[in-house]
Amino acid sequence: MPTMETTQRSATELTGRSIIGFSSGNSGGATFRAFDPQTGKPCEPEFTSASVNEVNRAVELAVAAAPQWASSSREVRAEFLRAVAAGLEKIASTVIERAKLETGLPEGRFKSELARTCGQMRLFADVVQEGSWVSARIDRADPKRTLPKPDIRSMLIPLGPVAIFGASNFPLAFSVGGGDSVSAWAAGNPVIVKAHPAHPGTGELVGRVISDAVRSLGLPEGLFSLLFDSGIAVGQALVKHPDVKAVGFTGSLAGGRALMDLAAARPEPIPVFAEMGSINPVFILPRALQERGEHIVAGLYGSFTLGGGQFCTKPGVVFVPKTGASEELARKLGERVAEASPFTLLTAGIRTAFVHGRDERKSTGNLRITVGKNGDPDDGSYRVNPVVMETNAETFLANVELSEELFGPATLLVSHSNKAQVLEAASKLKGHLTATVHGTEEDFSEFADLISVLQTKVGRLVFNGYPTGVEVSHAMVHGGPYPATSDGRSTSVGTQAILRFCRPVCFQDCPNEFLPAELKDENPFRIWRMIDGEMTRDAVARPA
Amino acid sequence: MPTMETTQRSATELTGRSIIGFSSGNSGGATFRAFDPQTGKPCEPEFTSASVNEVNRAVELAVAAAPQWASSSREVRAEFLRAVAAGLEKIASTVIERAKLETGLPEGRFKSELARTCGQMRLFADVVQEGSWVSARIDRADPKRTLPKPDIRSMLIPLGPVAIFGASNFPLAFSVGGGDSVSAWAAGNPVIVKAHPAHPGTGELVGRVISDAVRSLGLPEGLFSLLFDSGIAVGQALVKHPDVKAVGFTGSLAGGRALMDLAAARPEPIPVFAEMGSINPVFILPRALQERGEHIVAGLYGSFTLGGGQFCTKPGVVFVPKTGASEELARKLGERVAEASPFTLLTAGIRTAFVHGRDERKSTGNLRITVGKNGDPDDGSYRVNPVVMETNAETFLANVELSEELFGPATLLVSHSNKAQVLEAASKLKGHLTATVHGTEEDFSEFADLISVLQTKVGRLVFNGYPTGVEVSHAMVHGGPYPATSDGRSTSVGTQAILRFCRPVCFQDCPNEFLPAELKDENPFRIWRMIDGEMTRDAVARPA
Repeated sequence: MPTMETTQRSATELTGRSIIGFSSGNSGGATFRAFDPQTGKPCEPEFTSASVNEVNRAVELAVAAAPQWASSSREVRAEFLRAVAAGLEKIASTVIERAKLETGLPEGRFKSELARTCGQMRLFADVVQEGSWVSARIDRADPKRTLPKPDIRSMLIPLGPVAIFGASNFPLAFSVGGGDSVSAWAAGNPVIVKAHPAHPGTGELVGRVISDAVRSLGLPEGLFSLLFDSGIAVGQALVKHPDVKAVGFTGSLAGGRALMDLAAARPEPIPVFAEMGSINPVFILPRALQERGEHIVAGLYGSFTLGGGQFCTKPGVVFVPKTGASEELARKLGERVAEASPFTLLTAGIRTAFVHGRDERKSTGNLRITVGKNGDPDDGSYRVNPVVMETNAETFLANVELSEELFGPATLLVSHSNKAQVLEAASKLKGHLTATVHGTEEDFSEFADLISVLQTKVGRLVFNGYPTGVEVSHAMVHGGPYPATSDGRSTSVGTQAILRFCRPVCFQDCPNEFLPAELKDENPFRIWRMIDGEMTRDAVARPA
Repeated sequence: MPTMETTQRSATELTGRSIIGFSSGNSGGATFRAFDPQTGKPCEPEFTSASVNEVNRAVELAVAAAPQWASSSREVRAEFLRAVAAGLEKIASTVIERAKLETGLPEGRFKSELARTCGQMRLFADVVQEGSWVSARIDRADPKRTLPKPDIRSMLIPLGPVAIFGASNFPLAFSVGGGDSVSAWAAGNPVIVKAHPAHPGTGELVGRVISDAVRSLGLPEGLFSLLFDSGIAVGQALVKHPDVKAVGFTGSLAGGRALMDLAAARPEPIPVFAEMGSINPVFILPRALQERGEHIVAGLYGSFTLGGGQFCTKPGVVFVPKTGASEELARKLGERVAEASPFTLLTAGIRTAFVHGRDERKSTGNLRITVGKNGDPDDGSYRVNPVVMETNAETFLANVELSEELFGPATLLVSHSNKAQVLEAASKLKGHLTATVHGTEEDFSEFADLISVLQTKVGRLVFNGYPTGVEVSHAMVHGGPYPATSDGRSTSVGTQAILRFCRPVCFQDCPNEFLPAELKDENPFRIWRMIDGEMTRDAVARPA
């Protein structure tokens, strides 16, 4: 085995090697490069795919790190998350430069994505430090009961090593140090990230910040590894590794489902939390359309083209009642699209899929397509023009492919002739991350049944707003029934994301001194606990 | 289609037909009978397997019932659960008679199981009525933030129709009206139960109580159906039905894994909560063994033979340090077993598996078996003698089949020569429902590392007690990593079981009047909610 190099380097110099605990990956694997979407040209340096041995080594280190991290104090966990946030801010300009190069997205986007990513780390640090997230419950003993009642105390504990797959469309917020990693660490799990191959340089920069934080705080080496791969072997090996206990993924339905199937077929199946996107239906109700159609057009255009339309929450279908106002809305949206400049997509593959999906839809009867004025740019870049499509509810219902995600700056207006028709369309929807309704109070009253149906289809219901822009907060649900996610009982954004990577354990008649601090009588951290069914921050009152 | 009969009959008269909403199942399917384990003779009446059409009809009714039940008030849900409990108590003697006949278990067992089952229903009624279980979270808007912050409010909502599989070993507490059904209803889901074929009469009696409660309270017909089957076709059809959204199961690893695999292979995979049993390791630490070995023997014997050893939590392996005291413990346990009367097992299949498993272990080298004095009773009954086996840690580690569940009155003593050996054995354990440690405070200090390892292997860690006897309370965790359950992140006993059958949804900028009551500003039920990260029962303070 060749000598492993240290990962400590200057912030700007990229090595192109995986980070395996405190060591660099070896040479010898298949190599790949990022591409500049503005030009289609490859970027320096070359990145080397990790080997199966390196996957095994990363998992071995994670297994070794797991007990220490699981029993780490809440201060230590919070300190680590804050150190990563501070480290990332320290090299912000370098990271942003690289992210721009690898994605074609603008500076402003990465300034806010970096702020959001660091804010997310600090929010989880706060949650961990406050401590009540462990959902501590105490049922006191009753030795006088006919069948003596034992003392039972439960709390959440970590699952063990978690494999995280970086997303193409959020190189910071949903990638190496993104929400999946942060929530897994916060819950007490070591993390192994499979970097997204479209932005490996950004991944390495973030990875080095994390690795440096692990080292400088004296934390166990296996708390973090970052693996590069030009293909799918590393990801498959991770998901199949018997010591990996959960998976986090953000990406396509095909990719997510493949990981779900792999995980379900293991001798020991493990949970996969895959966020796989959706078309996020929007319903514009009659009075709102009449009163503020023009305002809605502007918001809608901004939302479906934000980030080049490469958001999981992009509004991909918009239901409107067929009226003069809806024709006006369609016309206005068509105008905006026709005049727009092209948007740069993230990868050649995404561009190909977008162009293919768009052109395929052109052959649908009763579907009108308006595209930008300049045709597809033919300059080697990954740029495309935005697209707006129009059809009616009958056509939408008859063509299942119109319900599939078209990743990129496109949306579909669907006009319906009556309430029954829009209810039918809503009730036939599969799972989505979001649904949006634009309405007046009168509209919401009239369409209460529509809103009830939509609740059963999504993780988030937006009123008079736009689904893009996912607040990182305590109540956020960025999830939704399959196929929006693998498990609609979870969220990948917001503090409830921590609940994916832990499980309850209970202690029966455990002497106080051997209990975890969160469950001790005296409640040293003054966390919220449920004692005999009542929420309290008090200590346990000893039975008289 | 033949006319469907009503299910309203006298409490004692069994029809042998499925209950599909308010109708009785048709004749014509394959028939089967329960058997009396005391004699091995079939019991009246004949039961008829449901057809695929009847499965579809039950699901169709459940789909129709789902919206009304999901939006039912907490009072209505609580009233239903309490009505079922009261109805069950009203026919207690009939149910207990039939359960005794179909299981061979004694009267006292069913008195307590019925009390536990009804207590469980009332506990969930209380939880639902109190209302805080929905985990409401509110993040208030901040319109002044640079990027205006929306108002986000989340709570748990039901998943939709749930399929429940009754267990062989708890005809009341884990069956038609058992914990799985009750927690699914409490969360707001319709329930379709596949009855266990070993106690169909008990199932029908309980099912009719439930059906009567649904009808008399004017609840939607599809809230409950009960399907009989002599084979596996009904269960498979249920798990594969596109409108079934989750599965609850208690039974064997083979059965549970088959349902997991079916559910994972669906076009829309759904969660399966399968509790599949385990061997529930017990660790007797040196000082406790020395000080109170005799006391432990008595408790252990009672625990591994309780209910004929047919508990998911039966202590199936007991680790002891090899000393004079452990030899004494083995001798005493052997004496008890040798003198014991036989135990009646639940089914011919369980008896065959027990005898086979026992005899197979006889061929293991270095393993001593002590059985009851009378050999296997040969009277047509399902009775067997209890068994205690003894071996050493080396043999246990070298023979993987010794880690497999032997369902029935048997346990295995494993002696080890040092701490390293017992730590090795513990760290090689798969997932179990429970682990138990007997020790003095000094033992627990010395074996802190053992206790840490055990936490990662189980859902419940018992100190100086016995794993059988699962308290139904807020903090109970009756779960554990695979293969003890399909998803170690859940419990099938205690109020946290409700969390299996719901998912979070959030509302963004929803006008107060259109929010569910639990999320309205005024907090009409005064439930506990997290507002901007703080737990409170207060109303939302409107921003100044």
